[in-house]
Amino acid sequence: MEAEVKEQKRTAVNQLDSLFKPKSIAIIGASSKDLSIGNVIIKNLVHFGYKGPIYPINPKEPEIRGIKAYPTIFDVPHDIDAAHVIIPSKFVPQIIEDCGKKGIKSVIINSAGFSEMGEEGVVLQKAFLAKAKEYGVRIFGPNCQGIINCDPDYNAYCDFTFTFPKPGAISIVALSGGVGAFIMQSLFDLDIGMRMYASNGNACDVSISDVVNYYGDDEGTKAIILYTEGFANPKEFMDVAKVVAKKKPILAMKAGRTEEGAKAAASHTGSLAGVDIATELIFEKTGMLAFNNEEEMCQTAMAFSTQPIPKGNRVGIITNTGGPAVIATDELVSAGLQIPALSAKAKEILTATQLPEASIGNPIDVVATGGGAHFRSALDVLMNEENIDSVYINFVTAPFTDTDEVARQIVEVNKMKKKPIVCNFMTNMSMERYQVTAKIMKDGGVPCYAFPTTAAKALGALYKYHKVSTRNIGEAKVYAEVKKEKALAIINEAKKEGKSFLSSSHVYQLLSHYGIPVADWRIANSIEDAVKGAAEIGFPVVVKADAESLVHKSDLGGVAINLKNAEEVRAVVEKMKGKFNAPDLKFFIQKFMPGGRELIAGVSAKKELGHLIMFGIGGIYVEVLKDVVFKIAPVTEVEANEMLTKIKAAKLLDGVRGEKAINKASVIEIIQRLSQLVCDLPMIEEMDLNPIMAFEDKAFVVDARIKI
Amino acid sequence: MEAEVKEQKRTAVNQLDSLFKPKSIAIIGASSKDLSIGNVIIKNLVHFGYKGPIYPINPKEPEIRGIKAYPTIFDVPHDIDAAHVIIPSKFVPQIIEDCGKKGIKSVIINSAGFSEMGEEGVVLQKAFLAKAKEYGVRIFGPNCQGIINCDPDYNAYCDFTFTFPKPGAISIVALSGGVGAFIMQSLFDLDIGMRMYASNGNACDVSISDVVNYYGDDEGTKAIILYTEGFANPKEFMDVAKVVAKKKPILAMKAGRTEEGAKAAASHTGSLAGVDIATELIFEKTGMLAFNNEEEMCQTAMAFSTQPIPKGNRVGIITNTGGPAVIATDELVSAGLQIPALSAKAKEILTATQLPEASIGNPIDVVATGGGAHFRSALDVLMNEENIDSVYINFVTAPFTDTDEVARQIVEVNKMKKKPIVCNFMTNMSMERYQVTAKIMKDGGVPCYAFPTTAAKALGALYKYHKVSTRNIGEAKVYAEVKKEKALAIINEAKKEGKSFLSSSHVYQLLSHYGIPVADWRIANSIEDAVKGAAEIGFPVVVKADAESLVHKSDLGGVAINLKNAEEVRAVVEKMKGKFNAPDLKFFIQKFMPGGRELIAGVSAKKELGHLIMFGIGGIYVEVLKDVVFKIAPVTEVEANEMLTKIKAAKLLDGVRGEKAINKASVIEIIQRLSQLVCDLPMIEEMDLNPIMAFEDKAFVVDARIKI
Repeated sequence: MEAEVKEQKRTAVNQLDSLFKPKSIAIIGASSKDLSIGNVIIKNLVHFGYKGPIYPINPKEPEIRGIKAYPTIFDVPHDIDAAHVIIPSKFVPQIIEDCGKKGIKSVIINSAGFSEMGEEGVVLQKAFLAKAKEYGVRIFGPNCQGIINCDPDYNAYCDFTFTFPKPGAISIVALSGGVGAFIMQSLFDLDIGMRMYASNGNACDVSISDVVNYYGDDEGTKAIILYTEGFANPKEFMDVAKVVAKKKPILAMKAGRTEEGAKAAASHTGSLAGVDIATELIFEKTGMLAFNNEEEMCQTAMAFSTQPIPKGNRVGIITNTGGPAVIATDELVSAGLQIPALSAKAKEILTATQLPEASIGNPIDVVATGGGAHFRSALDVLMNEENIDSVYINFVTAPFTDTDEVARQIVEVNKMKKKPIVCNFMTNMSMERYQVTAKIMKDGGVPCYAFPTTAAKALGALYKYHKVSTRNIGEAKVYAEVKKEKALAIINEAKKEGKSFLSSSHVYQLLSHYGIPVADWRIANSIEDAVKGAAEIGFPVVVKADAESLVHKSDLGGVAINLKNAEEVRAVVEKMKGKFNAPDLKFFIQKFMPGGRELIAGVSAKKELGHLIMFGIGGIYVEVLKDVVFKIAPVTEVEANEMLTKIKAAKLLDGVRGEKAINKASVIEIIQRLSQLVCDLPMIEEMDLNPIMAFEDKAFVVDARIKI
Repeated sequence: MEAEVKEQKRTAVNQLDSLFKPKSIAIIGASSKDLSIGNVIIKNLVHFGYKGPIYPINPKEPEIRGIKAYPTIFDVPHDIDAAHVIIPSKFVPQIIEDCGKKGIKSVIINSAGFSEMGEEGVVLQKAFLAKAKEYGVRIFGPNCQGIINCDPDYNAYCDFTFTFPKPGAISIVALSGGVGAFIMQSLFDLDIGMRMYASNGNACDVSISDVVNYYGDDEGTKAIILYTEGFANPKEFMDVAKVVAKKKPILAMKAGRTEEGAKAAASHTGSLAGVDIATELIFEKTGMLAFNNEEEMCQTAMAFSTQPIPKGNRVGIITNTGGPAVIATDELVSAGLQIPALSAKAKEILTATQLPEASIGNPIDVVATGGGAHFRSALDVLMNEENIDSVYINFVTAPFTDTDEVARQIVEVNKMKKKPIVCNFMTNMSMERYQVTAKIMKDGGVPCYAFPTTAAKALGALYKYHKVSTRNIGEAKVYAEVKKEKALAIINEAKKEGKSFLSSSHVYQLLSHYGIPVADWRIANSIEDAVKGAAEIGFPVVVKADAESLVHKSDLGGVAINLKNAEEVRAVVEKMKGKFNAPDLKFFIQKFMPGGRELIAGVSAKKELGHLIMFGIGGIYVEVLKDVVFKIAPVTEVEANEMLTKIKAAKLLDGVRGEKAINKASVIEIIQRLSQLVCDLPMIEEMDLNPIMAFEDKAFVVDARIKI
């Protein structure tokens, strides 16, 4: 599969070169009308210094914005790499065919009036897409902004927005043009260089996954910012993101995290709706960095654009003012960073080099009168200190020191790129004196923030990327002995019978085929069968009335527990026979296993994604405290283990108040087998193992439900 | 007490006028040396246009920065209102005496070398403070920055920092000068006007409470920003903050919220250390708005400086771009705001006035081509809509519309101050065209943010202030029948005996004196006594061995439950007699009450603050899930009620899985009586009611511990 993904990727990358690195561009629907999109795009291309030829296509105008125009693309006497299409939607299918005939490789369709506009639009979209496939044309959009490539070899501003970024290392992909635009603007305001930009609207062909894939292979892209409101093809995205996120950080935000937000997103995109936890899980599983705050995401990008990734969580703090170091410490620690004590040698050097009133420790307080030499000695110490992985600086431009010299020293150390540095740079930018200092810092590639918490959050994100990119969840275990064919036969039989829930016997057979331990059980059709089965299992037993019509059997008196002998079984079964008059009534006899820890595992199918697996402690922990954790299947051993440790009441599994610890390994195995089961049998809609009774030595499924 | 606080306040306010509104200022330690503090302060006063006379005091120089200097304050032939002191610490006591003799009312001591420097400094600080008290001089500092008053009648820049704010409505008070300075700088960068500023360093006399009090009475102050690392006198602060926070919002941040942060704060301030939850509780109890992120706090101040407070949580959204509305919706909803549907009438007006492609709903999407008239009609609708309390706007400066006209329409509606408006204003400020639009917005007092989440957070804070300022927790109930004298006698007796824990009989007597229901009990010295007592109480009973040396009696086998008859009691007591050889051994016999819900309440004394009261559900909810809630005593009925509803497992109290609900009223009463008990008996260090057994009809304390 890895190889397959790689091959897909290679193809996609080659094709997208014509989109992101177009050698020439036609503007189909070029207009001489100021402020129209067909005019603004030409203006933007020229203004941004596009390196290739521009071919305005307009049936009437001989030239547009001083550039020779052509009536049709066929009149252009050269090859065309890419085209913008800004004509009414009904003409688009024909134009795409023309583009194919002309050999155009990529088309950005800015025009609206397609799938976002209902049935008629959908038909048009399908029509042009068919033509595009026929001729091998890649489509970007429709109903989109376009792309930007700041690589000075191209300077391709194929977009109608109004921010002209400086070249840099951050690439953006955003479902919403509005959000993409303000992210781009924010990087510009923060003086962070941008590499590429893409906002693909209806995304009928080139997807967010394709773009992320392309950015992943682009050497000039150091980090990726992604905004979405959901994924049309989450599985494809996961495959891509998993690979790319190992290579470079993906800072991601998904809006619609509240019910109301999801509703707004639905009315906005018309498709990718639904409050889901799936996107968060995708971010987590693939090692992306998730944000709920786009301002924080953009500010964090500044650190990623210039700094190396730390090798651990140990930070050294240099400060020339007290309070901001306290604030920074709070945030750094909250982000999982540690502020270790310095070595004796480090302290010795600092004592010799710092001012007498300086505070020698971690934080190192060089005090407000500390100058370049003091900052430098502190920096050198931290760069050489073995148990320090990154450096946080508070630098207030105190009036009684040479702040330019301080900046130069920080920059010199920063340029070594030995360990990441972030700086909370507190100054008055309206004063010329400090503008100079600021410029030294910025030109020297030091990420400068105006608040300690903001700077600390950025460093926290660098560390988080270290953590997620070095985390190895492994591959999902495959239990070879499982009986997939038999399991499939059970489901097919139930399907043929038109059932949506499997019968108890089918449920337990299915679990057994996948090696999921079940409390010993029998199915009985008669009282005698029931008594016989109970004796075989050994008392005490549970008896459950089993018929398709009995969904909430427990509430209806269809469950009797702790039956200690044949007489009790007989009495119960007789009573149930009288009570439930179902023609398919059977009795499910099971070993009664009290005293264990009640656990719960569940599965739900997510369209286009596969299954989510849920784990929690049963009873009030699930019902009242909602203390559950989800993962996307397939779940690896590492992930199954995480599920047990990530619930809030995890300590209960180790035994508290004199209770014994449960056998976690057997629960972890149940989760993995469950994962394999639903991956093998994707037609399963929902599944509950509730409860799983876990004991010191083993865990058993005691009740289960499977919906197909 | 209210009256007392008011009187204190009046005095403080009058005295602080000489500090914040000085008619004349002497600079004791004025210096002709550029960049020295004694020079910078004079430069700042002049630069900021201070309205009164400045008297540099220097033994040698005839003039400093062109202003006539005097050898001593006694040589100044006029009255002096306030003075800066910037001379070595050892001379300060004498100078303060001189100031007193000269009739100077307020002195800002910028000099360091006092309590922050160890014992010698403490002595000096005490010495000058004695002189100050003698002469009625108020001291600001020492080791501090100073104050700023932007009121154009004063223009008092009594500080050596480098940011020159424009006059406005936000006042700042900050323990740390470094933090105060960057907050002031942030307001300046955000173009938010400032009213007053104070950073009081060692705060030996004028406290943060005094300053907040003063700001509270200052009509020009619309909102207060407060930064601290703790409070020297939290009780005094609470009394002040409670009154002020009702009148105007106090945006507050306390650093040192992590253990490591608290450690950094300790080494920074040398005093106010300790990770405490007390400060958060003070913020909550007094109705302040707490922040963990200083950037967010400053950005939020922008909305408070111009906008009215909403009357409820219902927000109307106007947007001209889709994605940012989704992001805003997420944040607004997370902040507790609702986005209600619009009335039929509103929809009718909108349908008639908006563009055909506009989306008529909430959000109202006026689309990117919408102009001033479209924004205006949407705004008018929301201003007139009864079920809308505030307005959130996304305004991207789309190139194809007259953005200035949109801005003018927003400003016109904003000026009516009918309902609060915040705006996520997405633009490119490097383009002149949009600078004009931005200026219209800013001059018109519309709070403009660059990100949807940031703008939404600000609106969320406005709403939160509505909530906390209209919340009435009432006064703590006083149960008149309690026997305070008897309770006090018990404690005094225990103290006299040198005990730090009360004996069981004392504990239960004490609880009974305060009407806290206790399961019926007897103390027995002998086996016969025990059997008799048990019979009186009625079986089943619990027997606990009771001796001072037995702290963890339950672990040691000193507790026997569910004893059903005299024989069982006899056997248990005999066994305990053999086991525990303590000379003071007694037996505590108590009614056994199984089957209730196990609750826990606790008390801990906090230095200078009083007591914190804790409540939770016993067992694993406290031990594993740490599901507890704290309040500062005295706890009112409203607060006691909140304690029951704020725990995460609150639903358990209502009965789940077939259990009965507990009698909450009786638990709420226990909490209030407990509060009264510890307020009456402040010598109690710690107290646990663990467990309280709560039943459908009543709740009883079953075990308790009191430390004095």
